[in-house]
Amino acid sequence: MCILSTSTTVVNCKFSTKNRIFKPELRQKKLNLISSTIPFKLKNLLLHNFAVRQELMDTNTDLLQYIFNQISKKVSSTVEGHTSLRKNLTPEDLKESLDFKIPYQSISDNEILNIIKTLMDQSVNTNHPYFMNQMFGKTQPIAYLADVLITLLNTSMYTYEVAPVLTLIENETIDFLSKKVWGRSGDGVFTSGGSMSNMKAMFLAREYKFKDSRTLGLNAYPPVTIFVSDQAHYSFVKGANFLGFGTDALIKIPSDVNAKIRIDALEDIIEKTIADGRIPIMLTGIAGTTTSGSFDDLEALASIAKKYNMWYHVDACFGGASLFSDLEKHRLKGIEHANSVSWNFHKVMSMPLSTASFLTRDKGLLKEAFTVNADYLFHDHDNTYDLGQKSLQGGRRPEVLKLWLSLKYKGEAGFKAHVESLRQKAVYFSSVIENNPHMELFQTPESVIVCFRYKADSLDDKDTDDLNIKIREEIFKKGDIIFNYAYLNNKVYLRVVLLDPDFTKAQLDHILETIETCAKSILMVADS
Amino acid sequence: MCILSTSTTVVNCKFSTKNRIFKPELRQKKLNLISSTIPFKLKNLLLHNFAVRQELMDTNTDLLQYIFNQISKKVSSTVEGHTSLRKNLTPEDLKESLDFKIPYQSISDNEILNIIKTLMDQSVNTNHPYFMNQMFGKTQPIAYLADVLITLLNTSMYTYEVAPVLTLIENETIDFLSKKVWGRSGDGVFTSGGSMSNMKAMFLAREYKFKDSRTLGLNAYPPVTIFVSDQAHYSFVKGANFLGFGTDALIKIPSDVNAKIRIDALEDIIEKTIADGRIPIMLTGIAGTTTSGSFDDLEALASIAKKYNMWYHVDACFGGASLFSDLEKHRLKGIEHANSVSWNFHKVMSMPLSTASFLTRDKGLLKEAFTVNADYLFHDHDNTYDLGQKSLQGGRRPEVLKLWLSLKYKGEAGFKAHVESLRQKAVYFSSVIENNPHMELFQTPESVIVCFRYKADSLDDKDTDDLNIKIREEIFKKGDIIFNYAYLNNKVYLRVVLLDPDFTKAQLDHILETIETCAKSILMVADS
Repeated sequence: MCILSTSTTVVNCKFSTKNRIFKPELRQKKLNLISSTIPFKLKNLLLHNFAVRQELMDTNTDLLQYIFNQISKKVSSTVEGHTSLRKNLTPEDLKESLDFKIPYQSISDNEILNIIKTLMDQSVNTNHPYFMNQMFGKTQPIAYLADVLITLLNTSMYTYEVAPVLTLIENETIDFLSKKVWGRSGDGVFTSGGSMSNMKAMFLAREYKFKDSRTLGLNAYPPVTIFVSDQAHYSFVKGANFLGFGTDALIKIPSDVNAKIRIDALEDIIEKTIADGRIPIMLTGIAGTTTSGSFDDLEALASIAKKYNMWYHVDACFGGASLFSDLEKHRLKGIEHANSVSWNFHKVMSMPLSTASFLTRDKGLLKEAFTVNADYLFHDHDNTYDLGQKSLQGGRRPEVLKLWLSLKYKGEAGFKAHVESLRQKAVYFSSVIENNPHMELFQTPESVIVCFRYKADSLDDKDTDDLNIKIREEIFKKGDIIFNYAYLNNKVYLRVVLLDPDFTKAQLDHILETIETCAKSILMVADS
Repeated sequence: MCILSTSTTVVNCKFSTKNRIFKPELRQKKLNLISSTIPFKLKNLLLHNFAVRQELMDTNTDLLQYIFNQISKKVSSTVEGHTSLRKNLTPEDLKESLDFKIPYQSISDNEILNIIKTLMDQSVNTNHPYFMNQMFGKTQPIAYLADVLITLLNTSMYTYEVAPVLTLIENETIDFLSKKVWGRSGDGVFTSGGSMSNMKAMFLAREYKFKDSRTLGLNAYPPVTIFVSDQAHYSFVKGANFLGFGTDALIKIPSDVNAKIRIDALEDIIEKTIADGRIPIMLTGIAGTTTSGSFDDLEALASIAKKYNMWYHVDACFGGASLFSDLEKHRLKGIEHANSVSWNFHKVMSMPLSTASFLTRDKGLLKEAFTVNADYLFHDHDNTYDLGQKSLQGGRRPEVLKLWLSLKYKGEAGFKAHVESLRQKAVYFSSVIENNPHMELFQTPESVIVCFRYKADSLDDKDTDDLNIKIREEIFKKGDIIFNYAYLNNKVYLRVVLLDPDFTKAQLDHILETIETCAKSILMVADS
């Protein structure tokens, strides 16, 4: 019981963000500590967690120790900034280094160790701060711990019977999140990801507009329209297809030069589709676009949704995190008018994939829409606490634990500090770009994605596109730093997602120097 | 490197199923070993896995050790068979024992420990062999390890770029599974669960029948019908609603006394719906029903699907595991005619939730149906290996690793032994029931669910129903053994899902004795 009496607290010093933005010496201290060994055996883990078979006890492999050492090596090299976070291997290369075939007889523990070694070695290190290719990464340790717990508890979120504590945790977290959005209790459910959340919004929009579509189906009604900007995530296209609306129903409104939906174009387009015999059922605002992290004018969209009596959905999968900060949340002004909101936590908040929520302003809508009769599972008694009744999924992993435990551990204040620290990095990073005559910033970043392109006086737009694609390819191949590129205003931009609140100035400068050096080298070869 | 040179192998002794069905003495040995301690610190884990903040290093909590000890206690008590695997707590009780509120400031490590302690203590122990309430449980240790790895690798299955090895692993596993179903390579994708798999089948059925529905939507076509038995999982209802067909499109065919779809009733019903102007698009066979684990006549259904040119889907979420055994796979005869198959591995195969696949006989269908343009993610180059193009989900956890690594570790032979051992337990269990004059077996179990009811000469059917509900409630409240009840042929049956291949005869007898004792006690109180 001495474990429980540990009294070291870290509460008061953790979240003082003053004067601690860039402290490389802390990094060095971490490094020194990382070299200690872990006295840990797979055998013990397994014995202590499961009643495993006798034979396994007779083995003595240190699988997990090996895995943890491997990750340790990756992370420590990360901090030094010298080692590759990916290897440039083709599928054919991989097939040579690993036997993917499934054997008839079991293989030896040694072979399992080799497989895990290869898997670790040849996977991309998404915990590396220089992994800036995706909107996820840099897992928070407390959330990692929660994820291990989820696997150990191995239960499903459909009934209170099998998930009593976790059900209350999900209810409490949904309540907390909906208060962040609406300032009062709403409703919602954790989903398998942002795509499913957006599709649930499309589904509720249909239910809202066509009450009997649940039984009658869509073919009893006129064709519909769902409005999104041309910057919307591809899940809206998949959803329009999957949910039977047809992709013709998805109307993409042009965005302006800052990747925001063109409010001035919207009403004319709506009117035109109405004249064509289609019924507008949903309007979407984006809080943090996928490509550039831009925020639509949610307030203006709310008015238009109201005017045409449409379901108003806000896709805040990426930008929802800004609600934690008083400095940032103004970008989401108008979200309080939304009927539903998608909000992911494996993006800016660095929970492990997937930790995602779908929230509704009004209570009971999800339950009303999804309730089914399943007498082997949901019995007749009061099932207020059976969350399966408001979810599309059947078996559902309690992903909420990652967010809730992290919120407990760090407090709202910790999440606020996390968001604000990331924003400081993005602002610093973009200011360096702005001051570099060879670089062109897409826009002052509104979140933690920075889009920019390298340019040379001698190159036209097309050549500049090619140059930037080439820059991305070269650096990607080398594997020290990973970012992506995308099209904005029909031009290629490099796209960097900053997810490490502990980035140092030196690290951020290093990224831009690497890009500049690479660009110059490409241009020199082209000239010669 | 000594870790890698460990040469202990367990290959040859692991899968000899002869003479090892019930060996209680092995259990005792396990117990003795379980009492050893784990020298493991959260601090080290976190340091070695992530570049965590300085402050965390100064703490010295043993969170994971605590967690593992807790689970250990649960498991060891499990084996002894004496301790509760759930506590009978109301939401109000839970709210008193745990502060669910999310704080503004971070809380202390001590408080975090207390939270985890409470969470572990008040959650249901699904790893306990007596957890027989659900179709999942008893996680396989190797799959648990793989799940921890998944969290550490934290990547998404949409592009080869960010998941090179895992992409090849998913491809190989899909190939392996489709060969089990069709005897040749098919196609498929891992999904968030069986519900989503069944919905994907409904979606492909639509695409197959109405080529332009992708763009035009369902309202350009006549109403459809989708046929399932009345034993089908509730996801078909949710799917008919979600996908816009309307629940009226879902036609439930009556099942016979053995919970199998009535082939003799099917064609008349199909003809009637055609006469009503509906177009039949899909017929579903069930390999392992949710309530009783019964298998439909998949061969007969295949002919009817063919006759009416319907998409033929087999829901093998539960029963697919039988394909691993030559002794059992005859129950799925006809599955080779299926256009698509749902198959879960977190059920009979005891992977952690969720590990689920959706398979198609023909290659390329999923990709054709789901491909979208997303230039920030999927670039123009050859994306044969970008699995996001055939998935409904965007970000997707590489759940496949659990199955693939377990298959490597245990071999196909290990999976075969697992299935056959479970079946032996189910057969033994049902034989004891059959020989008990106070018990009535629903049917000789075809999988690992055994349904039966306690009966007394003095009771009519209604009273017998009440008695069995009461038996379930009483035992459930006590928390030593958890199983469920369900309706079959309009009568209440107790429903026991056997998922521990190491069940002893004594344990199985104990379950039935507990039920009998409970029944007698209820009857005695009623009489007095």
